[in-house]
Amino acid sequence: MLVWEIVALVAGLVSIAIGALIYRWVMSQKVGNPGIEAYSVMVQEGSAAYLKRLFQVLGMLSIVLTIVLLVAVNWQTAVAYIVGATCSGAAAYSGMIVSTRANGRVAWAARSGLAKALPIGFFAGAVMGLAVVGFALVGMTILYMIFKDPEIVLGFSFGASQLALLAKAGGGIYTKTADIGADLVGKVEFNLVEDDPRNPAVVADNVGDNVGDVAGMGADIFDSYVAAVVAAMILGGALPVFSGKPAYILLPLVLSAAGILASLLGMIFVGRSGESSDPGRALNMGTIATTLIFAPLALAVVFLMGFEGNASWGLLLPTLAGLAAGIVIGFTSDRYTDIDQKPVQVTARSAETGPAIVILEGFSYGLLSMVPSIIGICVAMVAAWVLAVAFGIPGTYGVSIAAVGMLAITGMIMSSDAYGPIVDNAKGCAEYGQEGEETIAVCDRLDAAGNTAKAITKGFAIGAAALTVLALFAAYSETVDLAQLDIRNPAVIVGVFIGAMMPPLFSALLMLSVSRNAALMVEEIRRQFREIPGLLEGKAKPDSAACVDIATRGALKELLLPAALSLLTPVVVGFILGAEALGGFLAGIIVTGILFALFMANAGGLWDNAKKFIEDGAYGGKGSEAHAAAVVGDTVGDPFKDTAGPSLNTLIVVMSLSATVFAPLIAKFNLAALLDLAKLFGY
Amino acid sequence: MLVWEIVALVAGLVSIAIGALIYRWVMSQKVGNPGIEAYSVMVQEGSAAYLKRLFQVLGMLSIVLTIVLLVAVNWQTAVAYIVGATCSGAAAYSGMIVSTRANGRVAWAARSGLAKALPIGFFAGAVMGLAVVGFALVGMTILYMIFKDPEIVLGFSFGASQLALLAKAGGGIYTKTADIGADLVGKVEFNLVEDDPRNPAVVADNVGDNVGDVAGMGADIFDSYVAAVVAAMILGGALPVFSGKPAYILLPLVLSAAGILASLLGMIFVGRSGESSDPGRALNMGTIATTLIFAPLALAVVFLMGFEGNASWGLLLPTLAGLAAGIVIGFTSDRYTDIDQKPVQVTARSAETGPAIVILEGFSYGLLSMVPSIIGICVAMVAAWVLAVAFGIPGTYGVSIAAVGMLAITGMIMSSDAYGPIVDNAKGCAEYGQEGEETIAVCDRLDAAGNTAKAITKGFAIGAAALTVLALFAAYSETVDLAQLDIRNPAVIVGVFIGAMMPPLFSALLMLSVSRNAALMVEEIRRQFREIPGLLEGKAKPDSAACVDIATRGALKELLLPAALSLLTPVVVGFILGAEALGGFLAGIIVTGILFALFMANAGGLWDNAKKFIEDGAYGGKGSEAHAAAVVGDTVGDPFKDTAGPSLNTLIVVMSLSATVFAPLIAKFNLAALLDLAKLFGY
Repeated sequence: MLVWEIVALVAGLVSIAIGALIYRWVMSQKVGNPGIEAYSVMVQEGSAAYLKRLFQVLGMLSIVLTIVLLVAVNWQTAVAYIVGATCSGAAAYSGMIVSTRANGRVAWAARSGLAKALPIGFFAGAVMGLAVVGFALVGMTILYMIFKDPEIVLGFSFGASQLALLAKAGGGIYTKTADIGADLVGKVEFNLVEDDPRNPAVVADNVGDNVGDVAGMGADIFDSYVAAVVAAMILGGALPVFSGKPAYILLPLVLSAAGILASLLGMIFVGRSGESSDPGRALNMGTIATTLIFAPLALAVVFLMGFEGNASWGLLLPTLAGLAAGIVIGFTSDRYTDIDQKPVQVTARSAETGPAIVILEGFSYGLLSMVPSIIGICVAMVAAWVLAVAFGIPGTYGVSIAAVGMLAITGMIMSSDAYGPIVDNAKGCAEYGQEGEETIAVCDRLDAAGNTAKAITKGFAIGAAALTVLALFAAYSETVDLAQLDIRNPAVIVGVFIGAMMPPLFSALLMLSVSRNAALMVEEIRRQFREIPGLLEGKAKPDSAACVDIATRGALKELLLPAALSLLTPVVVGFILGAEALGGFLAGIIVTGILFALFMANAGGLWDNAKKFIEDGAYGGKGSEAHAAAVVGDTVGDPFKDTAGPSLNTLIVVMSLSATVFAPLIAKFNLAALLDLAKLFGY
Repeated sequence: MLVWEIVALVAGLVSIAIGALIYRWVMSQKVGNPGIEAYSVMVQEGSAAYLKRLFQVLGMLSIVLTIVLLVAVNWQTAVAYIVGATCSGAAAYSGMIVSTRANGRVAWAARSGLAKALPIGFFAGAVMGLAVVGFALVGMTILYMIFKDPEIVLGFSFGASQLALLAKAGGGIYTKTADIGADLVGKVEFNLVEDDPRNPAVVADNVGDNVGDVAGMGADIFDSYVAAVVAAMILGGALPVFSGKPAYILLPLVLSAAGILASLLGMIFVGRSGESSDPGRALNMGTIATTLIFAPLALAVVFLMGFEGNASWGLLLPTLAGLAAGIVIGFTSDRYTDIDQKPVQVTARSAETGPAIVILEGFSYGLLSMVPSIIGICVAMVAAWVLAVAFGIPGTYGVSIAAVGMLAITGMIMSSDAYGPIVDNAKGCAEYGQEGEETIAVCDRLDAAGNTAKAITKGFAIGAAALTVLALFAAYSETVDLAQLDIRNPAVIVGVFIGAMMPPLFSALLMLSVSRNAALMVEEIRRQFREIPGLLEGKAKPDSAACVDIATRGALKELLLPAALSLLTPVVVGFILGAEALGGFLAGIIVTGILFALFMANAGGLWDNAKKFIEDGAYGGKGSEAHAAAVVGDTVGDPFKDTAGPSLNTLIVVMSLSATVFAPLIAKFNLAALLDLAKLFGY
């Protein structure tokens, strides 16, 4: 099997190498406007300062957790944990580095037109995409080659998930603190446009895009990607029917290697079709091309790895089912947020009766929007399960392989995703550098393409996270070797209730953080307009650093409680109520976590587009009462879709991993066993 | 055991008889102001017209369901179903009759001061309370005396739950259509005060209070009360360890009889302490007195019924645990909605930064507010379970008896609850009858007491519903005789996901109905102010009937989809995916149903009080920008707390009953068995 380990390792190294080459190419592009350059440097400095402090927090947390793992688990897991946190940090950091340097270059290239600017934006995103999959695959493969034990690789995933939680939630608080502050004072009180250089919070807002949407999203996807692979590896090692067959442990790594190859070919496709008139379409065609290329590669992998008899089909079909489900969920999940569909338009119309009805409509449609995705996830799970069982493969392994199949094309998905904030930032650079209207119009078109791609990648990310946590759930229950997990057992019921409560609780804490910090930001911006003479007239520069500082400190301070909650709760539930209650707990967070993630992401997107629909001229357009009402909806939706919603994906993965890492310990020693809860409950 | 059956029957009959006597006393009170009288008659007519049409809809639905039950279950269940729908309708109708006649009498008595008005308001509510428990107990006892089979009594509960769903959801849509319409045009556009007689929607608004908060709430509590008793009866009959011991079937009926006696004594307590200066305190003291009286009665019942050995303790302690938990949850659940506490005040302060932050704060605190109640419910369940098991009683029966214990004092709880809308309406009557400021001030104090009592009864209702559905869940699984209900089974996972999706989906449909109908109402009110000359100057009367008609037709039309959904989904899930998936489905709706019910009720209450806090003078008081922002929060919260939130209680009970009624059929015949899903899943 060594040859397959080497295949996975080489694929990961190639991914990093090509990412580095692309980075050099992006950096070789010129910026000819010192205004753009100055702005880009401010964003670079703000982002670097934030990430540096985030890594310090992570560092302190890591020291504590390394000691805990050394004492409670074993040194190998502690090593894997450190490697995981480091690889994930490296991926997030490289994404941030390239995105904050590419923004100005895209802005300058936009002067020469779309065809010149699009490839820079896309390939800058690709650096991030390749770094994510490359560092992930290299890290997991090396750890497996050394220790030959998926339970150790789990430590890698745990480390990656730590960073993801901090980066995603912290970035989410950061970006919305700055965004809401900038909007409430700049747009509403002083009538400035988005990205107006006189607004003191504009730099912080753009830093937020980079640390939230690039570094945070990168760490989040790194986390899901690794968790899916590790869950499948653990099941491949733990299920009795696979005993003595390491190919089942290796399969997820090799499928990921095939996915990297497919993504690289898909990127070439985007690069070549980027000159077409529709950049959004180019990105989506790239995703579809990657999918089509991945399918035969998966077939080749499965059959070449030499599984006995029909097993190959029981592995290939779930992989393809996962892949197809990802694409279908991605392409259908935007019905409720699409500007051309009824929900957005009804919400926009209701803006004429004021903000309250806008909120009610968006809230309600957000809830309805869960239905198609949940059905999609259920269908994908059942299909993967049944297709695996039909060929003698256990259903849980089938589901875990479907998650791997869905996430195999992460390289491509992450590239389209990172493209969005880069071109969004490019617009900020162009505004700041006082480029002409034509350049800004090109930036706007690039930005719109990013939004189209984002609708699809977002659905994809949630579908993948759902299958991943279902696989992790199965991995957890294999690890503690649960004989039954009956919902009628009172310990399980209590676990389910407490688990189900966590995602809403976590969302609430994050949103309260945002509104607390946004209030500080509003005060600071008002102070600057009051105290800096000539600021509003454009004669003086704002003190952007002060705003960056408020966002940075606020985000890091507010992180502590939710982070502690997500790390400790599973462990506490397990130790007090036992392994079965912890199983119920995981089921609870998975269910409400997915529901709330879908609801918040879609409601937020819907309000955003309802506002855009009015800005495009409906119901009185900009400046009308309807517009003011729609802005209220959009402001409410901002932390829904950019802070709480996406952090829930990470939350459920982190909690599942926490549970699984400490599972063997919990199974051996817990208060429930000590008190003989099972006897007390008669269950 | 005949003696105990007679005890239960007599208690029920006494309850109805005393209710009738109190009704005569309330009707003997005078109204000396023709303005009040005229207004009261309009509300009476509007309410009667709505209920008549609601009963027609229910009648048609009943015909269909009776036939279904005849064909699919048996004729006895069909008979019980009709009796259940009729008894529940009778209770709701009598409540509505007395409340719409008492409002004017309370208003007139308020001229003579608080001490005269409070007893009329409270005892009018008591008529409703006694009708609910009386009709419920009489109906269940007679059916059991005839058929000697709890599974048949289940039909009674099913019938009651049908009406509850229609009455609660329909009433909720009705009342908020009228309320939001009246507020958006009357208060915001024309600066009229609440209940201003010139506002065309004021009568509809007050009709809404009666059909939503009196008839709807009555039907809802009737439903929970019956479901708790029936679930315990089924478990008492079905658990193997109880076989041949009918005392376990009868116990819930007899405990309910003891609860009626305790409630009657508690009412005397309120009647005597009503002359004190604090009417809110009088109501709460009544609840506490009832609780303290019930405890020794429960002890007497349990020991007199002659259970063998220690079993009596295993029955008494869970009963008391349930009772205590109800009181504790009730008294602690208002931390997040209390006007003197941090969440309300922080939300009020955030109104200074505009409506968006008000929404975000209220939404977040609403989510946080679930935590104490969920913990309370878990503790109550575990305590009941463990206390039962310790004395040899199965844990599921212990939980069901805890639910019965919690709901035993429903007579008193329902009375305090119905008091609220009656005195609220009294204020409308006083305004319409142009009574002096002093009278209105008395009405305001009565109303405030209603709100204090409501905070407690609301927490109580949710706690009771939670334990009840947990008991129903156990009853369902006994009925289909499930060997295992493992969350790792893919059929169960799919069931959980679909179930978990239902409460949000149902809430969304109801809220969209409200906003759709409120828009129609807004148009009608605007039309009247435009087309009726002299209306705004108070020289012409508005066309109140037109507004009543919009609310009535809208509510009934919008009911169909959610009602069909709640009836059919469990049956469809069961028939397609099998009995285990249906078990998962029930677990899913219970968890998210309770979470959303708590969240919506508390968020709505919080926004309401944040607005009141500002109206009391904070942050600029009435007319300030902060007030306008807080009004947006309140308007969003209205359908949360009065339409969707409370309907969820009913929804989870209805779905659990649907599942249990059709369970034997589903267990015998379903697609999952036909296709051998278990083999396809390898589970």
